[in-house]
Amino acid sequence: MGKEQIKNESITRQEDDFAQWYTDVCKKAELMDYSSVKGFIVYRPYGFAIWEQIRNYLDARFKETGHENVYMPSVIPESLFNKEKEHVEGFAPETLVATIGGNAPIEDRLIIRPTSEILFCEHYQKIINSYRDLPKLYNQWCSVVRWEKTTRPFLRGAEFLWQEGHTMHETEEEARTETLRMLQIYDDLGRDVLAVPFLKGRKTEKEKFAGAKETYTIEALMPDGKALQSGTTHYFGQGFAKAFGIQFQGRDGKLYNPHQTSWGVSTRLLGSIIMVHGDDNGLVLPPKVAPIQVAVIPIAQQKPGVIPAAREVAKTLKDAGFRVKLDESDKTPGWKFSEYEMKGVPLRVELGPRDIEAGQCVLAKRNDGTKITVKLDELASKVKELLELIHTEMYQKAYRFVEEHTRECHSLEEIEQALNDRCYAKVMWDEEEESENKIKELYQATARCMPFNQIPFGDTCPISGKPAKKVVIFGRAY
Amino acid sequence: MGKEQIKNESITRQEDDFAQWYTDVCKKAELMDYSSVKGFIVYRPYGFAIWEQIRNYLDARFKETGHENVYMPSVIPESLFNKEKEHVEGFAPETLVATIGGNAPIEDRLIIRPTSEILFCEHYQKIINSYRDLPKLYNQWCSVVRWEKTTRPFLRGAEFLWQEGHTMHETEEEARTETLRMLQIYDDLGRDVLAVPFLKGRKTEKEKFAGAKETYTIEALMPDGKALQSGTTHYFGQGFAKAFGIQFQGRDGKLYNPHQTSWGVSTRLLGSIIMVHGDDNGLVLPPKVAPIQVAVIPIAQQKPGVIPAAREVAKTLKDAGFRVKLDESDKTPGWKFSEYEMKGVPLRVELGPRDIEAGQCVLAKRNDGTKITVKLDELASKVKELLELIHTEMYQKAYRFVEEHTRECHSLEEIEQALNDRCYAKVMWDEEEESENKIKELYQATARCMPFNQIPFGDTCPISGKPAKKVVIFGRAY
Repeated sequence: MGKEQIKNESITRQEDDFAQWYTDVCKKAELMDYSSVKGFIVYRPYGFAIWEQIRNYLDARFKETGHENVYMPSVIPESLFNKEKEHVEGFAPETLVATIGGNAPIEDRLIIRPTSEILFCEHYQKIINSYRDLPKLYNQWCSVVRWEKTTRPFLRGAEFLWQEGHTMHETEEEARTETLRMLQIYDDLGRDVLAVPFLKGRKTEKEKFAGAKETYTIEALMPDGKALQSGTTHYFGQGFAKAFGIQFQGRDGKLYNPHQTSWGVSTRLLGSIIMVHGDDNGLVLPPKVAPIQVAVIPIAQQKPGVIPAAREVAKTLKDAGFRVKLDESDKTPGWKFSEYEMKGVPLRVELGPRDIEAGQCVLAKRNDGTKITVKLDELASKVKELLELIHTEMYQKAYRFVEEHTRECHSLEEIEQALNDRCYAKVMWDEEEESENKIKELYQATARCMPFNQIPFGDTCPISGKPAKKVVIFGRAY
Repeated sequence: MGKEQIKNESITRQEDDFAQWYTDVCKKAELMDYSSVKGFIVYRPYGFAIWEQIRNYLDARFKETGHENVYMPSVIPESLFNKEKEHVEGFAPETLVATIGGNAPIEDRLIIRPTSEILFCEHYQKIINSYRDLPKLYNQWCSVVRWEKTTRPFLRGAEFLWQEGHTMHETEEEARTETLRMLQIYDDLGRDVLAVPFLKGRKTEKEKFAGAKETYTIEALMPDGKALQSGTTHYFGQGFAKAFGIQFQGRDGKLYNPHQTSWGVSTRLLGSIIMVHGDDNGLVLPPKVAPIQVAVIPIAQQKPGVIPAAREVAKTLKDAGFRVKLDESDKTPGWKFSEYEMKGVPLRVELGPRDIEAGQCVLAKRNDGTKITVKLDELASKVKELLELIHTEMYQKAYRFVEEHTRECHSLEEIEQALNDRCYAKVMWDEEEESENKIKELYQATARCMPFNQIPFGDTCPISGKPAKKVVIFGRAY
């Protein structure tokens, strides 16, 4: 079977089977492929290029805010791993453990890093001596391994790519500020780059990260009503620092433990992009991360003058700084249209003999299918304008979806109804874990976060009947 | 002990103990730190930033030449690993093997990738069907693990960072061209970026990569006379393709195996930079990869006007696109001089009250210590000129060293003498492995390569007395 046929098969419709639609898009848009080890995927060029765009944006923002990149070992000795109790309990069940090196057993077995708090702490212990050494603002881009039972491309992997920031501060206040600053950078990424509106807030005690004092989150709402935790930032207090003996001489000459944060986003963001924006024709990519922003498709390309004109158009757009793909292959225009739709290319340029004669071309917007005829001499400025418009439209559509799918609930019945209607259930909560457990048992939903926007809409927790203390948002989750 | 004291300790002199000098520089210039697992190092911000510069240069060159980045799994099932016999024999003795996942034994044990030929082949087998799918020009940036017994920072690690290109081609000719094209890009990196002149050539049968038909290499000569293999490119022929059943329908409708290449450079290049350019005061960084290109040091900074003037200078240079560090800390200028010397910063700006009055500053070149007084209004253009000059001088010095340490040898005695004089021994070779073995036994030296420049200087192989067929260069190696 030729490649063309494979590609041009249609994909499952979202309303028929959303999970299958997702898998189809991942495969047919050539974002990833499976390997022979469950949960370890191949990031294909098109998928990896999206991640590179995300990385470039974040890396620049991290550096602007004084962070430095490092690379830590990919393995953690088991003895070291067991040093911070809460942390190890969170990760031990899903570790991959190397026991043989150079054909001989390894005495202190090596855990393939599931996250690197421990490695950073081991290093910080050696290099932090004085308040003058603080803050330490380190980040690393790497892969991590978690031996998950149920895996799905980008959403939950045995291996995934991410960045993990690990910082050490002189004061609690400074560390807390860092935790919120990094969350804001993630939120900016959503709004300005991915066109994904994130719900921002603090995790409940039950849902916070193993070993953290506080966890903050950005959550994205998927069309199937499930939340996707898309990034987190943690304030650790001094717990790890104490466990690892990290001390510095303060301005008063006394010894103190520094205050720590960590924060990360992963290739899970690709799952967000796919689900938030995609449709029955495939991916719909936000222009800022699209590896191809404009696909140029010649019509009747065998006719004289068409290919040269198409090349001219592609060159003009490339020179203007856009990421452009000119497809001169011998496939039909219709086939090409559907391929670049599947790949979510934001703008398509159609250019045929009559267009050329009239000094114009047709631009088709991937996000809503509208077509606009544009004079060739205005093309670059029009493309710039349209890419910005597409970003805004995509963001607004996603934002409206979240608004329309967030419901204030005053009773258990309303909570159940909201969840079944693919909505976030916003609840006045008594701040008791028992209430969270009840929602989990009854409706398989968890507290996604306590949103920053804490505007009370009642006095009583509808789960327990006790006085309400916090606004919390429940949702089913990936 | 405070940090300042640690930093300002002097390092071992090269002539006293070159190996210790190297380790001292790695640590004191804050390039790396050890972790608790042997051979797994921490790439500290300053060291990692050099790697980032190398990566940025190469990544752009790879993309210009049509390559795409991907990310493959970090593990290889043992059953798959055993598929290509020569390859597995090359790597099996130094693999790290994971045997436990989620607290349960793993049936098909997982090898932490030592290199990814196998993973690429597994994927290519699925996505290559037609000559239209070729070439596939993939690259990945990642870490690899090799359970080495003797490890040294950057030079030989149990884990190191690298890029590995893996490409598939329709014809042998195209694949061979790729193998040489990528070697040329590595050579450009040496000449234009690292200021390291590489010896380029083909590896002998004995020294080529496990599974390759031909291996090409870039070799750098260290001051202690040892060669450092700094990058390799391989032409694989169709061996892997056959082992993994990778076939494509050719233009004539028949099935063929594609022709394969791979190529890589690693963080070993940092070892090259350190040793080729460093001196008894520490690192000497080539300007193109220096994380800090210019260090601005205020003199008598407590005097009015000095700090503002130094800030102005730093801003001017930053705005002109240079990587600049202004050190306003309360350490003495002398301390700062030696710190930025240790870190190999190519240019130092000294600015004191009298300079400011005279509208000038002093520039000190790290590579040779010369000082130049420059008018402040010509500073940016002078810095540009000097950084270029420093690059050229560093390259030329290193080039002369290689020239002066390459000796044509006509007898075993001359070979021994050359090696003992820290030189490459250039030999007319009979192309027999027996002769290579003899040199190895007698003098612990290996054939570094058959240089591209094959100008014969004799008819007889001085090792065997048989007719000579190839010019080969022997050296002791890292």
